[in-house]
Amino acid sequence: MALRQAAFRPFTLAFIQLGQIRANKGDNIKHARDMVLKAASGQGHHKKPDLVVLPECFNSPYGHVHFPVYAETIGFTPGKVYDITSSASESVKMLSGAAKESGTWLIGGSIPERDTDDGKIYNTCTVYNPNGELVATHRKVHLFDIDIPGKITFKESETLTGGNTTNFFDTEFARIGLGICYDVRFPELAMISARQGCQVLIYPGAFNLTTGPLHWELLQRSRAVDNQVFMGMCSPARDLTAGYHAVCLHLEE
Amino acid sequence: MALRQAAFRPFTLAFIQLGQIRANKGDNIKHARDMVLKAASGQGHHKKPDLVVLPECFNSPYGHVHFPVYAETIGFTPGKVYDITSSASESVKMLSGAAKESGTWLIGGSIPERDTDDGKIYNTCTVYNPNGELVATHRKVHLFDIDIPGKITFKESETLTGGNTTNFFDTEFARIGLGICYDVRFPELAMISARQGCQVLIYPGAFNLTTGPLHWELLQRSRAVDNQVFMGMCSPARDLTAGYHAVCLHLEE
Repeated sequence: MALRQAAFRPFTLAFIQLGQIRANKGDNIKHARDMVLKAASGQGHHKKPDLVVLPECFNSPYGHVHFPVYAETIGFTPGKVYDITSSASESVKMLSGAAKESGTWLIGGSIPERDTDDGKIYNTCTVYNPNGELVATHRKVHLFDIDIPGKITFKESETLTGGNTTNFFDTEFARIGLGICYDVRFPELAMISARQGCQVLIYPGAFNLTTGPLHWELLQRSRAVDNQVFMGMCSPARDLTAGYHAVCLHLEE
Repeated sequence: MALRQAAFRPFTLAFIQLGQIRANKGDNIKHARDMVLKAASGQGHHKKPDLVVLPECFNSPYGHVHFPVYAETIGFTPGKVYDITSSASESVKMLSGAAKESGTWLIGGSIPERDTDDGKIYNTCTVYNPNGELVATHRKVHLFDIDIPGKITFKESETLTGGNTTNFFDTEFARIGLGICYDVRFPELAMISARQGCQVLIYPGAFNLTTGPLHWELLQRSRAVDNQVFMGMCSPARDLTAGYHAVCLHLEE
């Protein structure tokens, strides 16, 4: 059942800086599940978290050639109850199960999503309540197309399509607005979320070693102070053996 | 004659971190004039500047009780030629003369302005071309009303009225958008300027020791990166004998 907007109260957040993404999707999904359950247990921490967050593209190597290969069909319609048991997405089933098993809210980073209606592929975040119900999704609006010669060249739009909706979900502690990675580069999305009543913005990401140091801290602090919201992003740990070098920086608030 | 928008080219900018504002307005105006001429000469610098900038409220102590006492009538109408010789403002006459004498563009910080039509007082920036012509003004839109108990309490709105226009001017090196101090706290003004074609934003300011360290650097960098413009603000040197403690921090770009 969908919650209404709650008054904000402090809550505990766990960001999983999941690295070491492998070629085998099943391994990635299992690794993510293990880490969600570990984080949700509060093990090694002071407190069991209310909300656990995975980074962008956790079930697939990050690269436009990989997205179509690792894409899964989700088929979520906002406002409609989603039947997990008949989901075509292995990742969605795992995330739902992990949220339910641990009894925490879970922002499942993102996965490449194949929409069977329009035949397109999106970079999609899914969110689960502590009953394991899929309550919201967000398709990355701003695709990361970058070309800094000698530093980084990357073009998500080679295989992905950008989403065109803004998305948030209500928990018992906050209304939380969603974005993915490069969405933070554009202030309008955060402004819209704040004006829709979000007190917190959480964007899974996979910042790189070129623009990460320039933008990671600055953009999060900017969105937070301009919109008077809490802001958090979750990026994978650095893996210099991967094709794309994500950088794990520190959390802003 | 008004210029059209030029292609951006690099230029040299001098910020005058004018402190030691005194009770005697004539002294403040003379001090500002001396500093503008000194800065414009390039003395002690590598290069003669193309544009000189004074900080906020350079002719008056900064405080709502002072604004009505130090206010001057300007009477500028955008798009109309302004007759400096018949200006009722001593500060405007000085600024015009200093711009002409030095042959540089001059953003004359701000002064309290009394509008004889509506009887209200504004915090107003005036801009001069190298011929000494008054080409643009900006009335601070966002008045600085703050109350952090034990730290700083200040209410511009006690005596000032906020402006309701956005303003820019064209030079031969850039289109430059204007704001004053707390205007930078609100991203919309900078967004509007950028969408009007400004390549540079310059806001005279007088940041304080409480919110200055929190916001001075962050907001300037945010406006610059979000809008892909150059951004500069000019604040007075610290004077702990003054009623209002401005802080001179470093320039962002």
